[in-house]
Amino acid sequence: MRKIAESTVRRLSLYLRFLEEFEEQGASTISSAALATRGGTTSAQVRKDLSFFGSFGKRGMGYEVAALKTQLQEILGLNRRYRVVVVGAGKIGSALVQYQGFRDRGFDLVAIYDADPKKIGRSWNGLSVRDVTQLEKDLKHDPADIAAIVTPADAAQAVADRLVASGVTTILNFAPVQLQVPERVAVKTVNLVLELEALSYVLANR
Amino acid sequence: MRKIAESTVRRLSLYLRFLEEFEEQGASTISSAALATRGGTTSAQVRKDLSFFGSFGKRGMGYEVAALKTQLQEILGLNRRYRVVVVGAGKIGSALVQYQGFRDRGFDLVAIYDADPKKIGRSWNGLSVRDVTQLEKDLKHDPADIAAIVTPADAAQAVADRLVASGVTTILNFAPVQLQVPERVAVKTVNLVLELEALSYVLANR
Repeated sequence: MRKIAESTVRRLSLYLRFLEEFEEQGASTISSAALATRGGTTSAQVRKDLSFFGSFGKRGMGYEVAALKTQLQEILGLNRRYRVVVVGAGKIGSALVQYQGFRDRGFDLVAIYDADPKKIGRSWNGLSVRDVTQLEKDLKHDPADIAAIVTPADAAQAVADRLVASGVTTILNFAPVQLQVPERVAVKTVNLVLELEALSYVLANR
Repeated sequence: MRKIAESTVRRLSLYLRFLEEFEEQGASTISSAALATRGGTTSAQVRKDLSFFGSFGKRGMGYEVAALKTQLQEILGLNRRYRVVVVGAGKIGSALVQYQGFRDRGFDLVAIYDADPKKIGRSWNGLSVRDVTQLEKDLKHDPADIAAIVTPADAAQAVADRLVASGVTTILNFAPVQLQVPERVAVKTVNLVLELEALSYVLANR
């Protein structure tokens, strides 16, 4: 696998969204300049991002919207569906399993787990909270592509260890800790306090 | 304001957390190597990140934990408290106002708004959902430092425009759209589908 910066992958996801918007508006071709304007970047950046993955578009003709959309979906691995399990049935965990936007994009939230007997058995969108002691058994029968960790900070590393031992190789981590995982495992961390601190940094350094 | 990459600011936030951990464990000095190991980066990166903001630490002596912690808090603007308003009282919005971790870090969630009469008046952690028509009046009396937008996609841009017109200059956006704002306004976007797509990209390109 060629090493592509995370920021590039993120822009590819955004380009895909913009292409869908353009398609809805009836556009069949699109210039790199228009994509750049929509995304707050430059034409050169758009061309560079897309050039990583081969040659798209023709000089002076722009990109074919439908074809580029399909190619971006393939690059991003969105030409199939993914099974996602959620560990932690607190407020964020329950919001995740109720969010329709994941399913629309091919991410099926197939199970949610918790250790708290008061939460086990609760049900959202037809999904009942399962006892986290069942995690290994469930993953053995029905492997997950992606696991979201939405536990308290002090439980997150142990859950990550169990997921990795059960064959999960991609983790979306919401717990406010830096997880230690083997190199083959990809972790994306969503830490809302860090996002707020990026804004307090801006406010403090104006 | 010197232009510092967002990725650097993010690492500074992480270093601050690690310093707090080291302090709890009773350490009074820490080497750049130890900070680097904890954060999955290199000593050179740690020294480079910290050098942006002046000279810390002494060669061969490492950094003084308490002093570096204070300095990082100052750099990140964490030596004061911030008033945060939330627009959108859906599942994520309500999870935000109930999350204790923000207050612990100096971010006070002081108001939450919605347009839906069924949501207005609901209360979480002593905070009642206010009618979003009150937004401008409230911000005039009690300016907010940061606003979180947690509305549906099609409402987000209009809310952003109203916030900016009311003097808000830093926005944390959870709506799955790219907001258009004046250059002086800082926006951080949290888009969970994009995070999942970064993982599907990894799975597809192994």
